[in-house]
Amino acid sequence: MSLKLTILGCHSATPRTFAHPTSQFLEINNRYFLIDCGEGTQTQIRQYKIKFSKIKHIFISHLHGDHFYGLIGLISTFGLLNRQTELHVFGPKGIKEIIHLQLKLTKSWVDYPLQFHELSSKKSELIFEDEKVEVHTIPLKHRIYTNGFLFKEKLKERNLNMREISKYPAIEICDYQNLKNGKDYIQENGKIISNKDLTLDPPPILQYAFCSDTAYYEDIIPKIKNCDLLYHESTFLEDRIDLANKTKHSTAKQAATIASKANVKKLILGHYSSRYKEEDLFLKEGETVFKNIELAREGKIFSMEN
Amino acid sequence: MSLKLTILGCHSATPRTFAHPTSQFLEINNRYFLIDCGEGTQTQIRQYKIKFSKIKHIFISHLHGDHFYGLIGLISTFGLLNRQTELHVFGPKGIKEIIHLQLKLTKSWVDYPLQFHELSSKKSELIFEDEKVEVHTIPLKHRIYTNGFLFKEKLKERNLNMREISKYPAIEICDYQNLKNGKDYIQENGKIISNKDLTLDPPPILQYAFCSDTAYYEDIIPKIKNCDLLYHESTFLEDRIDLANKTKHSTAKQAATIASKANVKKLILGHYSSRYKEEDLFLKEGETVFKNIELAREGKIFSMEN
Repeated sequence: MSLKLTILGCHSATPRTFAHPTSQFLEINNRYFLIDCGEGTQTQIRQYKIKFSKIKHIFISHLHGDHFYGLIGLISTFGLLNRQTELHVFGPKGIKEIIHLQLKLTKSWVDYPLQFHELSSKKSELIFEDEKVEVHTIPLKHRIYTNGFLFKEKLKERNLNMREISKYPAIEICDYQNLKNGKDYIQENGKIISNKDLTLDPPPILQYAFCSDTAYYEDIIPKIKNCDLLYHESTFLEDRIDLANKTKHSTAKQAATIASKANVKKLILGHYSSRYKEEDLFLKEGETVFKNIELAREGKIFSMEN
Repeated sequence: MSLKLTILGCHSATPRTFAHPTSQFLEINNRYFLIDCGEGTQTQIRQYKIKFSKIKHIFISHLHGDHFYGLIGLISTFGLLNRQTELHVFGPKGIKEIIHLQLKLTKSWVDYPLQFHELSSKKSELIFEDEKVEVHTIPLKHRIYTNGFLFKEKLKERNLNMREISKYPAIEICDYQNLKNGKDYIQENGKIISNKDLTLDPPPILQYAFCSDTAYYEDIIPKIKNCDLLYHESTFLEDRIDLANKTKHSTAKQAATIASKANVKKLILGHYSSRYKEEDLFLKEGETVFKNIELAREGKIFSMEN
């Protein structure tokens, strides 16, 4: 069970010469996800040597330009490169119309299957699932409809404890799958052997929560409780909490408070406003509330393993 | 009379790590124009220290992504920076719908006046004019509706030749404007003094022609005849003329042929396909036909003065 997060861009909307807006590439349990796609993301993907072919699922948090203006370019480029593999885009209602209109007017309909999964629910939903990973939305509080995303490894099967199993000759190979699935074993005499006595716990799962953009919003805490890694936006410091409130963004201290209350293992801060010249100030402010913080920086990789 | 062209991006659509798609910033006779606006243009504008406030007129050649996907980001950024000055966008029919849909769905209507001038004529048109400069379209031949643009200084008034004028005491100050406008002077006795004997030629005008994207297309020659500076796309070399024909692009040799037949002073090549690793090959091929060629490169500035 492993997780590897590459920061492709972590700045807020106002452009800077060498800073990109939000985008992240997540590898979790051998599944790959692109999260948000600000302008220039396709160049950042190349810059950080991520293969285009790995991207099959893109999640867009909200329809502010610094989170999706790079999507049409990426989709078009996939077309130019004769991609055949299907691409799934999850994002707020409206995203399909924006992309389709541009593909139509540029006469650049792509040949590969391009599927949109438009979101409009204000409740958390399971929006992606396969045998390895689940993705749930985390409704956030921003100026427009916005979701964070919780990426969650699926629990593996229980491991057979062969030393214990061998004590019961009646247990046959055909019983193993039931044991892996957590079932108790019922002997011929009706006596039950608890599953716990015959199997070992699988490795714990990893969970990554992406929460941007959002005001301070305690409703997300139950959804991200105990997760291993949390990216929470911190556009401002406390000196501009007035602006954070007005624009529905968070301060570094607020992000750290959420991390603390949700008991996450590690917090990543990002989405810095261009008004702050030193990003270390975000770390300093956050650390007054929560200890295990790192700053997002372009190209930085966060890895975890269980 | 002066002209200064800054290349912001000069590569074709397939993304490269450190190469940007088409965009140019032109200063001509103290007027400023942005030509095309591929993804990442707003970052390039900052990179090359061009003031956002100078940009009041944007010309989009055609609706292929590598020529306009950066427009929505630039327009949004102007909004974020509380721009008040009006912005005029000239481009093919459809561009207004694309931008308006995104401003609507992102709930980011800008406060400054944003005016679209949509083009659909297949004939050359005068689309901008003030007392200093004219801009005419140059219909091109591409897979979709495409215009090049001819930027042309306006001829200044004729200069008074005071040494000659002083020989005719009857010529008064109130006659000067007529002389500057090119009129002859009629004496009381009915005799005519030719304007040429009383005035000197104004400095010659400068003209810049932007022609991208286009197949080899001799119809443009009369429109760009004798111009000082021509940017003509050269996506391919002659080794892939099959592909140039198929995709309606030009080779370096074809671009140079157009430059030669139109008798332009200087040719700039650009819009290089990523299949060529050495851009000098474009120069080499073009120079077999036309001598005064330079290669577009990001950040390169072309200046001319009369």
